[in-house]
Amino acid sequence: MTKRRHNQLPKPAGRRERRRAETREKLYQTAMRLFAERGFFDTSTEAITEAADVGQGTFFNYFPTKDHVLIALSEKQIGKISNALHEAEAGDRSIRDVLHRLMHAIAEEPTRSAPLTRSLLAAFVGSDEAREFTGETMARGRNSLARIIKFGQERKEIRHDRKAMDLAMTFQRNVLGTLLLWSIRPNGNVSSWLERTFEDFWDVATSKGDSPQ
Amino acid sequence: MTKRRHNQLPKPAGRRERRRAETREKLYQTAMRLFAERGFFDTSTEAITEAADVGQGTFFNYFPTKDHVLIALSEKQIGKISNALHEAEAGDRSIRDVLHRLMHAIAEEPTRSAPLTRSLLAAFVGSDEAREFTGETMARGRNSLARIIKFGQERKEIRHDRKAMDLAMTFQRNVLGTLLLWSIRPNGNVSSWLERTFEDFWDVATSKGDSPQ
Repeated sequence: MTKRRHNQLPKPAGRRERRRAETREKLYQTAMRLFAERGFFDTSTEAITEAADVGQGTFFNYFPTKDHVLIALSEKQIGKISNALHEAEAGDRSIRDVLHRLMHAIAEEPTRSAPLTRSLLAAFVGSDEAREFTGETMARGRNSLARIIKFGQERKEIRHDRKAMDLAMTFQRNVLGTLLLWSIRPNGNVSSWLERTFEDFWDVATSKGDSPQ
Repeated sequence: MTKRRHNQLPKPAGRRERRRAETREKLYQTAMRLFAERGFFDTSTEAITEAADVGQGTFFNYFPTKDHVLIALSEKQIGKISNALHEAEAGDRSIRDVLHRLMHAIAEEPTRSAPLTRSLLAAFVGSDEAREFTGETMARGRNSLARIIKFGQERKEIRHDRKAMDLAMTFQRNVLGTLLLWSIRPNGNVSSWLERTFEDFWDVATSKGDSPQ
């Protein structure tokens, strides 16, 4: 309680906000590390504050529940898709390039280690709250992906005979399938897995749908 | 102990084997139902024997551990891939048809309900033992899939410029990605999800890898 009141003391706004952002990031990074080591369900908020070396109640000043750390991760991922959408709008790079970088960017955070990937996947399917906002996040991500893909269709980089939204689903399906397979048996670095995954996605995005003979 | 000894009493072999197979199947089906209702980790072997209405120790006459129910599921899945391989060898149907049916057959068991799919995915990433044999099962499945795909390449149904093993990975990545996405937000029946998933897989399998313009 003392800590809570201390946090609310008037301070220079800039410095105070910077401190808050730093503490939040520290709690987030510590939580992700512990999720990787012990799994999401076996990590308590007390363990997070202890490992982050902050007061026990501090956690809840930043995250209402442990699930909100996963929400923070989802927000980071959505931010990456929004950035890619801005790049697509700007038109400086090919849509292939925008989507290729995006696939690697999206996988970066959850694949810091295979145990983290597994822990996150387990949390996303194992908790009703996490699943609800994951579904929401996936849907939001899919909308932005579809907008990027539409730019690709307009610029004749991507086929027109499939809905942009279906191809956005193709993108997500490929990334998730790879994260799952890699997390089960992480032989080789995830980057080369993602290269093949992108190649597959791009084959679908540009296929004429005819057979090879 | 009494039950164990009773099980080992001499009986007409055919009948005895039939009874054993029935009890094993009953325990398997009950376990799958409870995994769907409560999740894999929150289902005890006692709960399974109680719901199956058999003696408490009986479980271990059929499955050394709870993980072995998942191994039984994996064996069923491998059996489906082996059947498809035999069909491919027989050559009565197109490889496209063989793989199309296989994708639906593979998804059938784990998608009996979305909670079951989630429970199985959580078990496969959440337990080290389950993960180990899942990795093994996936590798075995991929070998057989690659052999089916090779038939497709020989018969000029499938492109030659990608390794059969890479396309087998494409197949698994697509199925797993779809199971994960569907289990998080199961709107619509899984069958139509699988249709689009197969369409994507087949685009990759037959793509000439050139752009649409």
